[in-house]
Amino acid sequence: MNALLTDLYELTMAAGYFAAGKHQEVGTFELTVRRLPRNRDFVVVAGLHRVIDYLLNLKFEPEEIAYLRGLPNFRNAPEEFWAYLADFRFTGTMFAVPEGTVVYEGQPILNIRAPLCEGQIPETYLLSALTFETLIASKAARVANAAQGRDVVEFGTRRAHTPEAGVLGARAAYIGGCVGTSNTLAGFRYGIPVMGTAAHSWVMSFETELEAFRSLQQLLGDRTVHLLDTYDAIQGAHNAASLGKPLWGVRLDSGDFLSLSHQVRAILDAAGLQSAKIMASGDLDEYKIQTLVAAGAPIDAFGVGTELAVSGDAPSMGAIYKLVEIENSEKTRYTAKHSPEKQTLAGAKQLFRFPEFDLLSLQDECAIGSEALLKPYIVNGQLVTELPSAGQIRELASQNLSPWPQPGRRMELSKSLEELNESIFRY
Amino acid sequence: MNALLTDLYELTMAAGYFAAGKHQEVGTFELTVRRLPRNRDFVVVAGLHRVIDYLLNLKFEPEEIAYLRGLPNFRNAPEEFWAYLADFRFTGTMFAVPEGTVVYEGQPILNIRAPLCEGQIPETYLLSALTFETLIASKAARVANAAQGRDVVEFGTRRAHTPEAGVLGARAAYIGGCVGTSNTLAGFRYGIPVMGTAAHSWVMSFETELEAFRSLQQLLGDRTVHLLDTYDAIQGAHNAASLGKPLWGVRLDSGDFLSLSHQVRAILDAAGLQSAKIMASGDLDEYKIQTLVAAGAPIDAFGVGTELAVSGDAPSMGAIYKLVEIENSEKTRYTAKHSPEKQTLAGAKQLFRFPEFDLLSLQDECAIGSEALLKPYIVNGQLVTELPSAGQIRELASQNLSPWPQPGRRMELSKSLEELNESIFRY
Repeated sequence: MNALLTDLYELTMAAGYFAAGKHQEVGTFELTVRRLPRNRDFVVVAGLHRVIDYLLNLKFEPEEIAYLRGLPNFRNAPEEFWAYLADFRFTGTMFAVPEGTVVYEGQPILNIRAPLCEGQIPETYLLSALTFETLIASKAARVANAAQGRDVVEFGTRRAHTPEAGVLGARAAYIGGCVGTSNTLAGFRYGIPVMGTAAHSWVMSFETELEAFRSLQQLLGDRTVHLLDTYDAIQGAHNAASLGKPLWGVRLDSGDFLSLSHQVRAILDAAGLQSAKIMASGDLDEYKIQTLVAAGAPIDAFGVGTELAVSGDAPSMGAIYKLVEIENSEKTRYTAKHSPEKQTLAGAKQLFRFPEFDLLSLQDECAIGSEALLKPYIVNGQLVTELPSAGQIRELASQNLSPWPQPGRRMELSKSLEELNESIFRY
Repeated sequence: MNALLTDLYELTMAAGYFAAGKHQEVGTFELTVRRLPRNRDFVVVAGLHRVIDYLLNLKFEPEEIAYLRGLPNFRNAPEEFWAYLADFRFTGTMFAVPEGTVVYEGQPILNIRAPLCEGQIPETYLLSALTFETLIASKAARVANAAQGRDVVEFGTRRAHTPEAGVLGARAAYIGGCVGTSNTLAGFRYGIPVMGTAAHSWVMSFETELEAFRSLQQLLGDRTVHLLDTYDAIQGAHNAASLGKPLWGVRLDSGDFLSLSHQVRAILDAAGLQSAKIMASGDLDEYKIQTLVAAGAPIDAFGVGTELAVSGDAPSMGAIYKLVEIENSEKTRYTAKHSPEKQTLAGAKQLFRFPEFDLLSLQDECAIGSEALLKPYIVNGQLVTELPSAGQIRELASQNLSPWPQPGRRMELSKSLEELNESIFRY
């Protein structure tokens, strides 16, 4: 299942490792945040749940193997390779930084130690699954921070890169600090609070706006949110005010939010609806929210869609997955890439977090007074830990984000890691 | 299946339409490209295959209904609503612009005529499914155009917003003009050519680069592509040259492509390998490719990942899905939104393409000498046409893109459509 969801070269290399008799050599592969996304000082790790599900269920179906056999890349693959693929399972060990953890540039967030083919094939899936949710959780953290205690709801599924990405993005946004999502499946699947009331279509489907508002109130009672801007937001506010309670509040979805929110607040207050809230949505991001908050706009909650769902200002991040060591029956070799500006650090690593700085070391080192961030999840193909709920991960993220991480946190390399890599570079 | 993959407000409105006795009213909803993505003069439509699959299979599972019943939004929903959801199927009619068609700002690309709830619930899924693939196909068209006849291969799954989006992105990139993809599942599922040979891990897993290259040659023969930059690209080129044929060529994945490609070309030529090709990959987009091509870099093929997989310069587009008319047993009402800068045009429409301009009209108008772009796919819940293969769609896109569409193509509104909307605005 899902074993074809990878780049062809991973499978080509698997055939090559097998043909060269290297498939029993054990590699350690490391997934590292080589470069932070644009405009980011840190990222909030998310997406690990999918990596675990993938590794535990990775296998090739007979029709998938038949497909591969027909590709020219495998013309010279040894016959035994196909039997190997038919029995293929992930039997390796995977350490990772827990979801909800803040990490910085140059930090490894996952490593796999496994027979070469088992470590190679997952590369593509792991990079995509981890970086996508990490991007969204990180963007959500910025948006929630800009809202300074006001609620932010994730509204972005319609702009996500596939509806299914919207479900995972909703989970990541919740981890990063949103209070809920409009995505119903995310609520069903991950227990995230789901929110949302009515769209412009609702208002348009009735002869008059007043009739539409009244019907919504009958359905939703004190959860009613009137969408004001189908025809004219100020007239909409008067209509909402005339109907009074029960009412949660109103939503503005276009126009000048600063001016409109003040006008709408005055209309609601004049009708004795001081407890009614104002929500704003429509092309918002952390920059616009910060401006509105600073200007004192009387907005109680924000709905954020497009820019959150795709991490609009930074829709990708430069994570890499590289071989850092390889061992066969004779010896262990430490490996690194030396391409200009794309060098990697050889050796399986651990990342220790001290209160004031981080320490990147070899995997078997100790660092008293710190937390080892790369923790075991899968050992010899078996899940060895219970996975936290989305709510628990959100709580960890909240701790990691308080106080707000400062740019330029220091990371030191351990002496052993430095010495190992100096010896590699000489080679 | 998938019926919860929507915004909660779609389902809340469905309950409200039902409670208000409006669920038998028939709405026409229109999906329109309100604003083109940044830096785009047009888009290439893609993603319709998923919309069709979704509509034909849309239903609620018992456990999904049980989940909804527990949500506070549905506290006042009538009991009959739950029986209605249990039997819910899409019985409406869907017209759309075929995948591979070029469209411009303000143009509708899909409409649905269906009982209100059936037209409302799909909004979220349809917007996401269509806009994502459309973004990628459009980006691919630009990248392929910049390469001026050189092959472009899609390499971006690892940067896609989920691995599954990578599969669909690969299909869209192929439609837009890429010659193939690295995504193996896209090849298996859609019959797209799959490509790719080896990564840096391959080179590092051997004691020496020469040994790694030799092993790859044994596996791949004349499909061999040596990746040059694991340690030093020039030394890599010398190693590749020393091994000679069989060889497809070499790949540069970092560094100054213009300078390196000239040096590598000279090394290969000096070894009598004039037929060996040079591929470049790594942080490429249409702008960089255009520069390399204009500078005469001897590069025969490009691998494009990140920027293509997420449409990096324009990761979202402003498509909307709005109610344009609604009919009950008594009358038809034409509906539009009047919010500032977000007005919509009432009335079910057809889009006619003449050689020199496009005409947006009411659905039942005729326009001799033009092609009606909105074509029937689903009528009364049944698929009424055979769907084209990815290859056929790619061919249609190629025709649509030749000659390359110019910015500012004219779109006229028919007199009837204008008159209808003038009457609405007065209302």
